[in-house]
Amino acid sequence: MCSPEVMSRVQAVLRGGNGSVSRRGFLGATGALAAAGALAPLTLRAQDATPVATPVLEGRTITYGIVANLSHPLSPTSPVWPGRLPFGVENEVTVADDGFYANILTIHEHIGTHLDAPAHFVDGGTTTDLIDPGQLVAPIAVIDVTAQAGADVDYALTIDDILAWEAENGELPLGAFVAMNSGWSDRFSDAEAFVNLDAAGVQHYPGFHPDAAIFLAEQRSIVGIGVDTLSQDPGNSTDFGTHVATAGAGLYGVECVANLGDVPISGATVVVGGPNHEGGSGGLARLLALY
Amino acid sequence: MCSPEVMSRVQAVLRGGNGSVSRRGFLGATGALAAAGALAPLTLRAQDATPVATPVLEGRTITYGIVANLSHPLSPTSPVWPGRLPFGVENEVTVADDGFYANILTIHEHIGTHLDAPAHFVDGGTTTDLIDPGQLVAPIAVIDVTAQAGADVDYALTIDDILAWEAENGELPLGAFVAMNSGWSDRFSDAEAFVNLDAAGVQHYPGFHPDAAIFLAEQRSIVGIGVDTLSQDPGNSTDFGTHVATAGAGLYGVECVANLGDVPISGATVVVGGPNHEGGSGGLARLLALY
Repeated sequence: MCSPEVMSRVQAVLRGGNGSVSRRGFLGATGALAAAGALAPLTLRAQDATPVATPVLEGRTITYGIVANLSHPLSPTSPVWPGRLPFGVENEVTVADDGFYANILTIHEHIGTHLDAPAHFVDGGTTTDLIDPGQLVAPIAVIDVTAQAGADVDYALTIDDILAWEAENGELPLGAFVAMNSGWSDRFSDAEAFVNLDAAGVQHYPGFHPDAAIFLAEQRSIVGIGVDTLSQDPGNSTDFGTHVATAGAGLYGVECVANLGDVPISGATVVVGGPNHEGGSGGLARLLALY
Repeated sequence: MCSPEVMSRVQAVLRGGNGSVSRRGFLGATGALAAAGALAPLTLRAQDATPVATPVLEGRTITYGIVANLSHPLSPTSPVWPGRLPFGVENEVTVADDGFYANILTIHEHIGTHLDAPAHFVDGGTTTDLIDPGQLVAPIAVIDVTAQAGADVDYALTIDDILAWEAENGELPLGAFVAMNSGWSDRFSDAEAFVNLDAAGVQHYPGFHPDAAIFLAEQRSIVGIGVDTLSQDPGNSTDFGTHVATAGAGLYGVECVANLGDVPISGATVVVGGPNHEGGSGGLARLLALY
């Protein structure tokens, strides 16, 4: 853990300007302090107030010809974690009877294509409403493990998979969103195949190995990770090591990401239209990729 | 109404390529057909399948140094339409007791910063899951009517307000999202002031005049409109003329947009992280502005 003095300095940098946390500012502060030998990996703490506008320290340019939808359309039959409440829709009014159409929805925070805020696994961690907006627009790195996952449904994405991506594409960009494409997305329309329970009730699908998550949190400067499966951890995880690593580092996760196979493995930008309710642990997220 | 032949031709153009509707393709088709004298304003119909990736016919470039949050954080005390169910949160598990934290949410489709899909007012109109992803990334034009609204809480944004914006900034860009900044956003934290009911139960706040909405739908090529109040129409509207005009033209609306006063009136880009549940009339939307 860092000393209170170091944390105080980091917090001061984080809260500079408009009172919002900039992940890039955060990383800059971390880097400067780390260079002085003062820092272990930091936990990004919850903020005092909802951030409004985040300066991106270096201006960025996005050039694109495609906008791709990376969020699965949600329905009451969409897959959910075993035992969890499925998506609910209750019709309230219709155009025919009332002049307009509306429904009341019941939504567990962790169904469908959704964001895990750090608070999901860290008491006092950043909640949905306090995630820095600047962290929601990021270069997306897609790590293709479809071959590995095709051979092993319990495949855990490794540090070597990340290094192989970097060998081909260069080091992960600052502030990247690192997404695992295991090919699992196609199963989303078949809840049973997506959750993939064995006879003992254990889930089987790919995820990040905790060591890979720790590597990203400590050795790279990312904003979050994404998976095309139901969990950041492989389905048969017993310790949620990846969740703990990302949440502990103040990173967000997105689960059940769709259509990653359509996105270039490098060079695209993702916009994570994450939830924004007070004190939330997570919630539905609309992801769009621009490339 | 258009003849079946014309509609068939338009549908063919709309569904070209990857089977998704491109609003720009749509507008191109409309323009070509309109030039032949064949078309009245069209209703964009619901699609057969969820669009995945939308080509933007001309590539676009976004250069930005700020990411701004345009969605209000939502809580159970956030303002809602009179009589409507407020946002509900039921805690399911906590880190202290269960190792992780999660809630179950009850969300009326039309509370908080939310999107109105065309299906909200048009039977058979486009639902949340079928909105073209390419329409969710747009140049944002902010029309500042804070002075007018300061003098008249029932102010209805006019065609002249749009033309005044254009006199200063040039014609609305193709595929624009046109947002009214009436200064009402500051009231969001005070539900009573935001809904602003009079003794007779009539709401009072600014909105678009239906003539302005029809002008935008017929004379410009936009993807949707936004308001910083509870309704696309002024609060005292009795005919929902603006809702009907936008939904009838296949445009979406976003209500309760936050922080528009921070966004440049021209030159910014908005990403509308709209809802994506099957058959939805609308739902929570995370808007981010890049500038």
